[in-house]
Amino acid sequence: MDSDYGVPRELSEVQQKRTLYQPELPPCLQGTTVRVEYGDVAIAADPAGAHVISHAYPHTYGQPLAHFLRKAANVPDAKVISEHPAVRVGIVFCGRQSPGGHNVIWGLHEAIKAHNANSKLIGFLGGTDGLLAQKTLEITNEVLSSYKNQGGYDMLGRTKDQIRTTEQVNGAMATCQALKLDALVIIGGVTSNTDAAQLAETFAEAKCATKVVGVPVTLNGDLKNQFVETTVGFDTICKVNSQLISNMCTDALSAEKYYYFIRMMGRKASHVALECALQSHPNMVILGEEVAASKLTIFDITKQICDAVQARAEKDKNHGVILIPEGLVESIPELYALLQEINGLHGKGVSVENISSQLSPWASALFEFLPQFIRQQLLLRPESDDSAQLSQIETEKLLAQLVETEMNKRLKEGTYKGKKFNAICHFFGYQARGAMPSKFDCDYAYVLGHVCYHILAAGLNGYMATVTNLKSPLNKWRCGAAPISSMMTVKGWSRGPATTQIGKPAVHMASVDLRGKAYEMFSRRR
Amino acid sequence: MDSDYGVPRELSEVQQKRTLYQPELPPCLQGTTVRVEYGDVAIAADPAGAHVISHAYPHTYGQPLAHFLRKAANVPDAKVISEHPAVRVGIVFCGRQSPGGHNVIWGLHEAIKAHNANSKLIGFLGGTDGLLAQKTLEITNEVLSSYKNQGGYDMLGRTKDQIRTTEQVNGAMATCQALKLDALVIIGGVTSNTDAAQLAETFAEAKCATKVVGVPVTLNGDLKNQFVETTVGFDTICKVNSQLISNMCTDALSAEKYYYFIRMMGRKASHVALECALQSHPNMVILGEEVAASKLTIFDITKQICDAVQARAEKDKNHGVILIPEGLVESIPELYALLQEINGLHGKGVSVENISSQLSPWASALFEFLPQFIRQQLLLRPESDDSAQLSQIETEKLLAQLVETEMNKRLKEGTYKGKKFNAICHFFGYQARGAMPSKFDCDYAYVLGHVCYHILAAGLNGYMATVTNLKSPLNKWRCGAAPISSMMTVKGWSRGPATTQIGKPAVHMASVDLRGKAYEMFSRRR
Repeated sequence: MDSDYGVPRELSEVQQKRTLYQPELPPCLQGTTVRVEYGDVAIAADPAGAHVISHAYPHTYGQPLAHFLRKAANVPDAKVISEHPAVRVGIVFCGRQSPGGHNVIWGLHEAIKAHNANSKLIGFLGGTDGLLAQKTLEITNEVLSSYKNQGGYDMLGRTKDQIRTTEQVNGAMATCQALKLDALVIIGGVTSNTDAAQLAETFAEAKCATKVVGVPVTLNGDLKNQFVETTVGFDTICKVNSQLISNMCTDALSAEKYYYFIRMMGRKASHVALECALQSHPNMVILGEEVAASKLTIFDITKQICDAVQARAEKDKNHGVILIPEGLVESIPELYALLQEINGLHGKGVSVENISSQLSPWASALFEFLPQFIRQQLLLRPESDDSAQLSQIETEKLLAQLVETEMNKRLKEGTYKGKKFNAICHFFGYQARGAMPSKFDCDYAYVLGHVCYHILAAGLNGYMATVTNLKSPLNKWRCGAAPISSMMTVKGWSRGPATTQIGKPAVHMASVDLRGKAYEMFSRRR
Repeated sequence: MDSDYGVPRELSEVQQKRTLYQPELPPCLQGTTVRVEYGDVAIAADPAGAHVISHAYPHTYGQPLAHFLRKAANVPDAKVISEHPAVRVGIVFCGRQSPGGHNVIWGLHEAIKAHNANSKLIGFLGGTDGLLAQKTLEITNEVLSSYKNQGGYDMLGRTKDQIRTTEQVNGAMATCQALKLDALVIIGGVTSNTDAAQLAETFAEAKCATKVVGVPVTLNGDLKNQFVETTVGFDTICKVNSQLISNMCTDALSAEKYYYFIRMMGRKASHVALECALQSHPNMVILGEEVAASKLTIFDITKQICDAVQARAEKDKNHGVILIPEGLVESIPELYALLQEINGLHGKGVSVENISSQLSPWASALFEFLPQFIRQQLLLRPESDDSAQLSQIETEKLLAQLVETEMNKRLKEGTYKGKKFNAICHFFGYQARGAMPSKFDCDYAYVLGHVCYHILAAGLNGYMATVTNLKSPLNKWRCGAAPISSMMTVKGWSRGPATTQIGKPAVHMASVDLRGKAYEMFSRRR
């Protein structure tokens, strides 16, 4: 399984077959006479924040939307970008790997070379580390050949660090200048695209010639807004996980004696859990957004599960599958408050050993109530984006223990008459992340890569590549670009008991919309 | 995901498509003029045990092998079973679910009805529980329709209990007599097939007319012997798990900072881990059989892993994937000895709370050394076959902790110069068990179902259905039957420091043959 960057690797038979698939391009991107048409100035969705954003992004906020269109017969040649000088473009994987990422690079490489064979695409090795240290690999057909339509980010590697401190931003700028890059393409989710916008603004301010382009790639599916319909990787993750959940459902139904508690990846938002529930029909799903909206405590959730178990036992069913989103722990008000306190103490430099003794009486009581394993996990240092280490906190085990305790109590009291409650816990956190991308993700990523080229050919800075109308067949897809700053909001995402906070503008993750279509479908079938 | 026995269930699109696949039959089983030819008397592989077995199985040991062949033009009609009276046949899932089980029932149903439309196939609901309680469901085309080529055992359900005590055996006989069964077909692994042989013998002794037939179905792949090449389910499990392991390899290679410790299901033998390693090329695999053969201690294994991690770090590789078989804990001499002591104290009725205080000084020292979580797991009551609760013992976490401690020590001492060692643990125990069966398992199970019919039509008792030459295309498969007692051995499987023990004859699980082909391939590629 090892590979050395740039050295062609040995592929399995199925990997080889996958390299042969050639995604199509929508008509608007075919040929070398794509034209740009500018739309309205892109406005931030929240008008209250627009002022703050325009203040923070004076050079890059307030730019128009761009649409890439096929050169129509009656369009004067002047409107088509006819000259395509050789360009030098850098590209970097930021954040966690997501299936389809390689195809963005493939698409961009195709487009660059189709317009000028002398252009160069330069990949940064090891994510932001490579960007700052100028560790590069020139992307060629040979390098790409074994990564087409493949999962993972291993062609270049990645880190999940941000590009945010002045030192990091200056380091990135130094690299772009040293390598004489016309553009830098950043592949990532909400955090990395926020960074991309910041880089674009700083570069413009400093009159650095490099334009910065963002691409929406994250399996969490939480980069969604007025301009972005979905992200690369989400489709694959939901399909692969749904298949595994279906297997678990068959398994539970065959054994007839276990409840499977499955924690799904997806960070704070419950998109993955919701979509997987729609695809695989487990018996129960807890959505973080519902919990937050109804301010359910851990005891409320436990009771809900227990009542469902009891109702099923009355129908002689003593098995089931329950999905739990990775981010649930931050949606439960009292646990969120506890995490905030712990986080604050981390920030004050209090050592892990001493944190529990310095909690407020209320938080301390909750902390002491929790089982040992989860206490240790809650004390882990937060991630670079200040969220808890969600992948490490076994909320599914906590819930399973609480439900078991309650069901044993009900059994003793005689209110529950089913079989002894048996829970088995699972975390579906990594099995799908390296999966081979679905056809949709192969196509979507490849097209986005092409769009990146047209953005930089148009000389746009601080834009994200967008493809819309994605539910229609590929030949109806619409390609464009929107300023990343217009996707920003200013208020922190208000969850649980946290009061809304005014902070820096950022592309915030979109939580599951409880008035949206997916949730409505889910509620109807529940 | 719920279903009620016998009520047609709603299928997903992919499930529906799968029901349309019609497995073929090898030429020898086509039509209704299949003939039986008897071969030599089947002799137990271990001559030393033959005497004990023949003593324990006077009615069913010493029977000949049976081969089912196509009626050739020059074969007199007399040799073909021409009369096919209506029969009543019971069928039951025993032991853990394995992909393909449903197709055995489908194949048997097809064969039964093809030979006499008045014959009946009766399924027992909920495994051995249903067999003893006479909970039945008549198998019809309608019942089968939504289970063809589907995973799980949910058409009938199962338990993993044995049919071994006098009470259970008598209960099974009472059911067979009450339902006037001509034959009882038992679908399962080594334990259930041993039970099948015992039932056959007891029924013959008691002049009960019901013949007992066994079918080799277990995902562990450990029912292998001179007559049985592989079991139904093993192919699927290895393919599904290999795909997940490949995903993990891509993931590890993309993140470049984690070692994934993956515990594979498969019970005591390491067949699943070995086959998955051959298919997916992880960085390292620990095989229980190697550990037992070399008498490696937990510290030896830790050192092996640490040395590999250190060697990789010298090549600037700080990531990897390590497979660990579920049964490893019983292959490590000192842990096996500890488990045996605990098991003995369980047998004496010592309560779980008091066990640790009653261990021998040596075992107690080891026990106290182990982390808390694994101590609790080692104290779990053993399974019905006296093995430890392997699925509950997190050997991968134990190894990861020990390796981390050692790597931190080496880092401090300066002998290890790589990045801080990071392990993430996984158990691939359930995701694949309910998977849809592979084409091979669909075909193999379906053909075995047909073979069952020919066994019972020939009036054979205590036989297992066999299909051989499985590596050739289906039209070259050879179908037959062998007395289950001839697959038995008498000595217990000697593992770790356990002395060989003389016990009851049984079909014992086959461990990975360290002189076999699969292991040789694996060693060559290592």
